[in-house]
Amino acid sequence: MTRTSLASRPDRFDHEAFRLGEPLMARLAHLATFTSTPGTSTPGTSTPGSLTRLFLTPAHRAAAEQVAAWMRDAGLRTEIDAIGNVVGRTHPDGDGRPVLLMGSHIDTVRQAGRYDGAFGVLAAVAALAELRDQGRTLPFAVEVIAFGDEEGVRFPVTMTGSRVVAGCFDPAALDAADADGVTLRDALTAFGGDPAGIPGLSRVGRPVLGYVEAHIEQGPVLEAQDLPLGIVTAIAGATRLRATVTGTAGHAGTVPMSMRHDALVAASGMVMAVEHVAANQRGLVATVGQMLVRPGAPNSIPGEVEFTVDIRAAEDAVRLGGIAAVQHAIRQVASERGVSVQCHPIHDAPAVACAPHLQAALQAAIEGLGVPPLHLASGAGHDAMMMARLCPVGMIFTRCWRGISHNPAESILATDAGLTVLALCAFLRAYAAAG
Amino acid sequence: MTRTSLASRPDRFDHEAFRLGEPLMARLAHLATFTSTPGTSTPGTSTPGSLTRLFLTPAHRAAAEQVAAWMRDAGLRTEIDAIGNVVGRTHPDGDGRPVLLMGSHIDTVRQAGRYDGAFGVLAAVAALAELRDQGRTLPFAVEVIAFGDEEGVRFPVTMTGSRVVAGCFDPAALDAADADGVTLRDALTAFGGDPAGIPGLSRVGRPVLGYVEAHIEQGPVLEAQDLPLGIVTAIAGATRLRATVTGTAGHAGTVPMSMRHDALVAASGMVMAVEHVAANQRGLVATVGQMLVRPGAPNSIPGEVEFTVDIRAAEDAVRLGGIAAVQHAIRQVASERGVSVQCHPIHDAPAVACAPHLQAALQAAIEGLGVPPLHLASGAGHDAMMMARLCPVGMIFTRCWRGISHNPAESILATDAGLTVLALCAFLRAYAAAG
Repeated sequence: MTRTSLASRPDRFDHEAFRLGEPLMARLAHLATFTSTPGTSTPGTSTPGSLTRLFLTPAHRAAAEQVAAWMRDAGLRTEIDAIGNVVGRTHPDGDGRPVLLMGSHIDTVRQAGRYDGAFGVLAAVAALAELRDQGRTLPFAVEVIAFGDEEGVRFPVTMTGSRVVAGCFDPAALDAADADGVTLRDALTAFGGDPAGIPGLSRVGRPVLGYVEAHIEQGPVLEAQDLPLGIVTAIAGATRLRATVTGTAGHAGTVPMSMRHDALVAASGMVMAVEHVAANQRGLVATVGQMLVRPGAPNSIPGEVEFTVDIRAAEDAVRLGGIAAVQHAIRQVASERGVSVQCHPIHDAPAVACAPHLQAALQAAIEGLGVPPLHLASGAGHDAMMMARLCPVGMIFTRCWRGISHNPAESILATDAGLTVLALCAFLRAYAAAG
Repeated sequence: MTRTSLASRPDRFDHEAFRLGEPLMARLAHLATFTSTPGTSTPGTSTPGSLTRLFLTPAHRAAAEQVAAWMRDAGLRTEIDAIGNVVGRTHPDGDGRPVLLMGSHIDTVRQAGRYDGAFGVLAAVAALAELRDQGRTLPFAVEVIAFGDEEGVRFPVTMTGSRVVAGCFDPAALDAADADGVTLRDALTAFGGDPAGIPGLSRVGRPVLGYVEAHIEQGPVLEAQDLPLGIVTAIAGATRLRATVTGTAGHAGTVPMSMRHDALVAASGMVMAVEHVAANQRGLVATVGQMLVRPGAPNSIPGEVEFTVDIRAAEDAVRLGGIAAVQHAIRQVASERGVSVQCHPIHDAPAVACAPHLQAALQAAIEGLGVPPLHLASGAGHDAMMMARLCPVGMIFTRCWRGISHNPAESILATDAGLTVLALCAFLRAYAAAG
């Protein structure tokens, strides 16, 4: 496989991209110092360090206040709302003007990178600051939202921030507890939020034009294509299966090969069959990410193997076909190997399409920067997935280093960050002109 | 695969086998109540329970004293020696008479069955009691030894009991500690043993005729052949490899199949290649028993997989060829999959042949019972492996249920136990006659 350098980029907008990208990178570095885990990060420097910022923790509160301050610097009216989202508005709330929502999330996984989520929030803020500096006014309101929970690491619910805004929050989730037994309700109150105020945050029935999110790709496609930006067509649907293979355990020395029903040999055949199914179906990915072998001793023939299969596709029909093919292949290997297998879905989410008119507008903005437009699906979930229940959504992807994400090694180029801001500015100008 | 019932057995010796087998089974059930772990075992009943009896523990001491008492009932002179072995002699020690050694071990793995080890000790005791009851005297001395450590679970050394008797004990091992930091030296002293007395236990230079051990098969071959007994040709040599496959971790949703270097897909191909090598080489078994997948999350492409390969054969040439073929196959899969692999031996023990004259004598004894003689290799290690450094060794295997061992479900038939005693009696009579 050839991977091209990150250094190649359109020349025309280099200066502008650098001018906008550098301060954005500095803000992202600073925001990365708001972490629950002691690390080597030094506020205001770009020294990489350990970053873990879970929903409703003191680190989240501090980061939210910093983001609100930067939003105010961009001329936005800000609040930290009842669920802990930071909201920055170009216009007063409730003036009846249609609203375009932008943003992403500022919570992280454990041992995270600094770009996943935060980049989309601060890129949107930078774009609005740039338009303000250019003296541009928009005929619609823009709200940038820094959602407080997308990753779902702390509580057994994900995308809490966007779920509330999209009007899909189930109040029963307030009673769910984190690993320390603290309920979401109590954590929210301690954070300064207000459980009773949650229903009022729903934008259902209000004049919402759409939701636009910038995000790092978290994959290697743009880098491999030597492109800084891409237009997201859809967020892939995802199904997770759990398979349990039961063979016959035994002593590694005493059972002839012909008399074995080795659960791991069978599971290995299944792993390869899963890969074969996905490799031969365009748009499908399938991954066995977790595998437990029992009894798991060097001198024991494995009697039981449990593994997960993660299956994703931007088109639901492709994913559903993939699930059926994977299950068929797994059962066939089990039958050939004389082992039994249980294989059931444990998670299932349909694909979410990005709105064609927003894809077209983002494409025009990217092309205007001299960047060839590449359309690609998002294999990872994003707040846009939840927001799609409320309104049309669009996403722009920014190239990242080697596709690495959810890892301190997450990395992007300053010029790519700046190009993202330029693209968002161009998008907003064109969207306003088309209004 | 067809597995025949355990019920089929030669009719001729049924009555005798039952007469000798029933009390032997009762003793094995009683011995199983000497355990370090509280279980449901009730002394004197055959209620299965949790059995863990590690070297030099109070449970070991209590079991050793019970075994010594049974040895005295059989007319043997007994002692618990300086390393914790129970020794029962037909004749006074040191009378210059040649000695035939018999026995096995009375330590167990954790969560063990009751037959592995203890069966061979108590079957030898029962055979000597039966000969005594028949008024038979032998022209040589017999010593039955209940070795105190074969499994090597507590300390980082295995076969301590037979190692001392064979004169292969390294005194440095006395300073090795168990998981609680207790050294072998201190544990031995607390048990009532004597570290200073260990060198004197070596039988090197003494008139030892050989060592004969009865043991449950711990494999399914005799059961599949519908045979109660078998003659062991050799104890397989064993090599253990550790392989570490390094691919590229990534997000399960964002990396196209064609751009992956999935360490688990590669490792799965290796597991199947290992099985293919062994399945196509007579006398070779190879097992991947342990596998760790990192990072091990359902939505992460595995970046690293570590696994063990256990390779055994009764013939060293077959095993060495197998090791080379397995390593070649693993490297070839790594090359095809674009991952790297480190694969190194972490344990290596050559095969031990059973003495032809002892095999012939055991075969005659088994045939005399109307049992067709089946010769088979032992895939598992036994005290006979260590004793072969001292003298000729012979082993007889007794059928066990489904090949299950190192498990509370370990099970044998009472008549098979009795046939083993009859075979040992016949062996001793014939060996005496031939002497």
